[in-house]
Amino acid sequence: MDYKQYIALVDDWPKPGISFKDITPLMDNGAAFKSAVDEIVTYSKNRDIDLVVGPEARGFIVGCPVSYALEVGFAPVRKEGKLPREVIKVDYGLEYGENVLTIHKDAIKPGQRVLITDDLLATGGTIEATIKLVEELGGIVVGCAFLIELTYLNGREKLEGYDVLTLMQYED
Amino acid sequence: MDYKQYIALVDDWPKPGISFKDITPLMDNGAAFKSAVDEIVTYSKNRDIDLVVGPEARGFIVGCPVSYALEVGFAPVRKEGKLPREVIKVDYGLEYGENVLTIHKDAIKPGQRVLITDDLLATGGTIEATIKLVEELGGIVVGCAFLIELTYLNGREKLEGYDVLTLMQYED
Repeated sequence: MDYKQYIALVDDWPKPGISFKDITPLMDNGAAFKSAVDEIVTYSKNRDIDLVVGPEARGFIVGCPVSYALEVGFAPVRKEGKLPREVIKVDYGLEYGENVLTIHKDAIKPGQRVLITDDLLATGGTIEATIKLVEELGGIVVGCAFLIELTYLNGREKLEGYDVLTLMQYED
Repeated sequence: MDYKQYIALVDDWPKPGISFKDITPLMDNGAAFKSAVDEIVTYSKNRDIDLVVGPEARGFIVGCPVSYALEVGFAPVRKEGKLPREVIKVDYGLEYGENVLTIHKDAIKPGQRVLITDDLLATGGTIEATIKLVEELGGIVVGCAFLIELTYLNGREKLEGYDVLTLMQYED
């Protein structure tokens, strides 16, 4: 499926010079959303995944249907102050701005095989931070799946040694 | 399934006096998460749903797998400044604090039959605001589904005339 027809390009958002890739029209279309999720499910099938992990909030949109289809759990990675119980945390740099991500300490059992999901692979900072959290809890990252890759931001360099799936690539 | 065994009760969070119901252990368990989603899917099956709508971020966790299973789209309701294109908005009061919710103007076509999802029915403020957004765009709210209901906060009063499903009820 040509998913790009369902992506809205929004210039100068959230700040001047950025062309934001808005996935909401894709999600709004049941057939397109299901097809995109199913591609990630197919990619995941031979990877013996125990758990899906995704950063808020768009990582939930991709990851929760994948976890449902795979019949495995989903563990949310959230900004500081959002998870109510004991967490571990990591600082990370975003394409715009800095932040802290957290995960519940009991979210992953050591040795669990983890698929990480998000809507967008940009600089890779968010996913690099998410991988750190997963590995600190003893999880094994067996794949990273995204709807969109901004190839000009070279996020894959940060993910060297990890298996990466992206459904759409933008070169500028 | 007795879902309450997968809910962590967190006292005095996010502020003193509140006993927070944390759904992350339920999500972390693939069988429990799937069973909960499937109950909402079963509830939805004879309602001819065209679209699922949920407020960020936990509404995505419940709603996105439901929309996937129903093979319909999902439209996110987000806090102000998070959606990149033209939105309509509504002010609402929460159990703690005040806020503004928004939805993309093109997220719902007039006449679409909408299921609203969230993790928690507390005072009902968030869902009342979400219903206003859906109806302002011409959507027809044919059901509201939650994992948890805090019956002592009387959220159902705000949802009179709407069909409501909750999987767990807490009386204090």
